[in-house]
Amino acid sequence: MKRFQQNIRKVVPYVPGDQPDFPDMIKLNTNENPYPPAPEVQEVLAKSNAEQMRLYPDPTAHQLNAAIAEAYGVEEAQVFTGVGSDDVLAMIFQTFFNSDLPILFPDITYAFYPVWCDLFRIPYEVQPLNEKLEIVPEDYYKPNGGIVFPNPNAPTGIALPSAAIEEILQHNPESLVVVDEAYVDFGGETVLPLLKKYENLIMVQTFSKSRAMAGERIGFAIGSVELIKALHDVKYSFNSYTMNRSALDAGTAAVQNAAYLQETTARIVKTREHTKQVLAEMGFRFPDSKSNFLFVTHPDCDAHELFEALREAHIFVRWFDSPRIRNYLRITIGTDAQMESLFAFLRAYLKK
Amino acid sequence: MKRFQQNIRKVVPYVPGDQPDFPDMIKLNTNENPYPPAPEVQEVLAKSNAEQMRLYPDPTAHQLNAAIAEAYGVEEAQVFTGVGSDDVLAMIFQTFFNSDLPILFPDITYAFYPVWCDLFRIPYEVQPLNEKLEIVPEDYYKPNGGIVFPNPNAPTGIALPSAAIEEILQHNPESLVVVDEAYVDFGGETVLPLLKKYENLIMVQTFSKSRAMAGERIGFAIGSVELIKALHDVKYSFNSYTMNRSALDAGTAAVQNAAYLQETTARIVKTREHTKQVLAEMGFRFPDSKSNFLFVTHPDCDAHELFEALREAHIFVRWFDSPRIRNYLRITIGTDAQMESLFAFLRAYLKK
Repeated sequence: MKRFQQNIRKVVPYVPGDQPDFPDMIKLNTNENPYPPAPEVQEVLAKSNAEQMRLYPDPTAHQLNAAIAEAYGVEEAQVFTGVGSDDVLAMIFQTFFNSDLPILFPDITYAFYPVWCDLFRIPYEVQPLNEKLEIVPEDYYKPNGGIVFPNPNAPTGIALPSAAIEEILQHNPESLVVVDEAYVDFGGETVLPLLKKYENLIMVQTFSKSRAMAGERIGFAIGSVELIKALHDVKYSFNSYTMNRSALDAGTAAVQNAAYLQETTARIVKTREHTKQVLAEMGFRFPDSKSNFLFVTHPDCDAHELFEALREAHIFVRWFDSPRIRNYLRITIGTDAQMESLFAFLRAYLKK
Repeated sequence: MKRFQQNIRKVVPYVPGDQPDFPDMIKLNTNENPYPPAPEVQEVLAKSNAEQMRLYPDPTAHQLNAAIAEAYGVEEAQVFTGVGSDDVLAMIFQTFFNSDLPILFPDITYAFYPVWCDLFRIPYEVQPLNEKLEIVPEDYYKPNGGIVFPNPNAPTGIALPSAAIEEILQHNPESLVVVDEAYVDFGGETVLPLLKKYENLIMVQTFSKSRAMAGERIGFAIGSVELIKALHDVKYSFNSYTMNRSALDAGTAAVQNAAYLQETTARIVKTREHTKQVLAEMGFRFPDSKSNFLFVTHPDCDAHELFEALREAHIFVRWFDSPRIRNYLRITIGTDAQMESLFAFLRAYLKK
């Protein structure tokens, strides 16, 4: 082995998730929105001007940031956007988690938190969810280098009330608290109003779920002008041009249509609540999800076997090969028709 | 100051480059292509389907990688794509430059190399260009943790012949050699044929210059299957979804039209050669550029003053506040009409 081969960074080999592509498939595995983005997105895309593509995009993302600021009632200088919320969160980890104290996050949560810690050499300590798979706020009342959790949490779907988050903030005036609200539009309480009160709080959201734009890669953070400036400083210092013109234009169009967001998320919530009823009748158990997915288990079924059976029927859901949740499946809420197909499959499966 | 504020990563404050936007401006400051991308790009963009945007993009970028592989006569497994060549290069630094020995690159070169070294804590040692602003191959015949340089170099525009790069490779069988060919389509010799012979070589290119797609953010690397796999492993391990659907689709369309690439780069080369003549007649001196820009100095002019005067006339070029090149301007090759406007300004300026 040559020296240049010895120097290759060692990582845990990772194969990108299943991207099944069958005409008849029911894709409930990556929490995508079953409805298209706001109609204005189609208009903007259709009007794309290739001539403009020869020019670099605006590195400050001014148009999009201003539109987000307007939609959320904050200043433009309080908004940071990136290539999906993964990019935004990674930038937050890198910018703010530079303490010798461990950062804290739940044991069952978004899988990339420990990955970014390893990548940026950030010490961390996971806080186990309780037996109901809930975050225990008191676990976060101890010295730490920062706190991050999704709300609602993934893959459980359980939301913390704002009051509980405020308690965490009050116990941590010296720590940065990052609330990852990827799924908040489906029924969680946003920390947006708390931003005025807590200078150590950052809210992160994405266009991939409630705004149905996973394919465009747009995420954003809102926080104090000081914190957002720090994010921009770090970002600009090593890569000025990240979001492309298409994402900036389509994102701006999407965020301006608040009515459409309300309408489609309400539709998904309605389907979710109906799905809860049906699955409960079949004997499934699940936490009370406030997101666009359910995290289900069944006393008479092995989750992995069910996962495989669903897959053979071209119904794709998510199974996690992880100790405490090995007997759970995460099922994205699709259209009513998709859920009916799922129910039909499950009824037949459970009768076997 | 609170602890969370003390923990903010310290970076050299950086303000993104001038993004002037005047209707009458002549923008020759960021080496963009004056011509639009291939006509197929417009077709693909106009046909964008917003409905598809609700789905995540293909994390393996299969369609685009296959098209690049086809265009360059390599296997798909030899191709890695990213969000602009900045993303690709940063990933290469992170994946391969993990030695205690310093990596080597020129003192006058792409400004982000030292930035990524600082970011990823990679030791480096710059090798001064000679007094003609040329890379001296012999400077790279010493123990190192890797080698990276642009060819043609930026901002000088000077190209190394393939034979000189092969000498560097022969003296460095244990080191990874990264050749950043952002500008190669304007007259440089690509290392593509050398890839068959040297397993320690990686070629990096971009769609931002010769393919006129800076606004889409697409870059790529070609190397051995082993090296490209290592890049994919690192990338997937911390961010699976980076390039959006628009970039994947438009990039595929662009790379399939080789004739258009040839035609527009030939047109730019013709304008460049004419520009050389005219500027030489005015007394400007410059290295013999093989790129889409000229790096010029004039014995009777202060470069920064000229830069400011051009700017006031809404002609934007690039000046670097850097020791050895403070009296130079980098001028992108625009259309013939744009260059004529530049010439007219310069003639009047020099007569003052």
